[in-house]
Amino acid sequence: MDLSQYIRNIPDFPIKGILFRDITTLLKHKDAFKEAIDQLFLIASRYTVDKVAAIESRGYIFASIIAYKLNVGFIPIRKPGKLPADTIKKSYSLEYGVNELEIHKDAIARGEKVLLIDDLLATGGTAAASAELIETLGGTVEAILFMIELEGLEGKKLLGKYNVHSLITYR
Amino acid sequence: MDLSQYIRNIPDFPIKGILFRDITTLLKHKDAFKEAIDQLFLIASRYTVDKVAAIESRGYIFASIIAYKLNVGFIPIRKPGKLPADTIKKSYSLEYGVNELEIHKDAIARGEKVLLIDDLLATGGTAAASAELIETLGGTVEAILFMIELEGLEGKKLLGKYNVHSLITYR
Repeated sequence: MDLSQYIRNIPDFPIKGILFRDITTLLKHKDAFKEAIDQLFLIASRYTVDKVAAIESRGYIFASIIAYKLNVGFIPIRKPGKLPADTIKKSYSLEYGVNELEIHKDAIARGEKVLLIDDLLATGGTAAASAELIETLGGTVEAILFMIELEGLEGKKLLGKYNVHSLITYR
Repeated sequence: MDLSQYIRNIPDFPIKGILFRDITTLLKHKDAFKEAIDQLFLIASRYTVDKVAAIESRGYIFASIIAYKLNVGFIPIRKPGKLPADTIKKSYSLEYGVNELEIHKDAIARGEKVLLIDDLLATGGTAAASAELIETLGGTVEAILFMIELEGLEGKKLLGKYNVHSLITYR
């Protein structure tokens, strides 16, 4: 199954000049959704991890299933002000704009191995910031998994020191 | 397993007077996370549905796994401005504040049966707005599932015409 056939391309979203890769058309198609998860799980299961961490909010859709299937805990990395207990924060630039991410201080114990999952690899800023949050807590990032990779933005370069995998690649 | 033991109570979050039920402590505990999902799936599998719809963003964590396990499509209901294609919108009041939700017009086909999932039932405003969005598209809401229900806020009354289930109940 060619998963890219289920991705919808939307020009000029969220701002002019950006060609947005819309995964909702894949998610709503039961066979494409299942195939995407199964392909992602095949990659995830190569790694032995203690936790799966996910970047809010589309990352949750894929990461929670992978955490469940690996039978490990799920860690949400969230936008500022959403996590209720003590957090650490990290600012980062993204394809369009600047943002900040937070993780609970008690989310990951020192020495734990973590798989990081998000829907899309663009410049890699979001994933790099997330990986740093995990490392600041003493965790190690075993691999970073994406549904989609926009190769032209060279996110893999920024994430050079990590094992990075993606299911669908756009030049 | 008593799932409520894995929920952390945080006073005065996000605003003074609110006792926040923090699910991140459950999510990160692999056995509690698995048990919560398996209990939710047991309820979900009583219904025959075409789609699972989830409310951004914590709803995604539970709903995507249920959609995957039921082998049906996953529909995200999102905060304004996030969905890239044509949408319909619905305003609603929540426990603290007012908000708006959107769904893609092509998310659900007329006559499709939908299971709606979110993490928390408070006043029910978010779920009621989401159910209305599904119905406006011609779908039927077979049931609404929550991890946590805050009984004192009487959300079940507002959702009176739906089948509503929750795993953990607080008075």
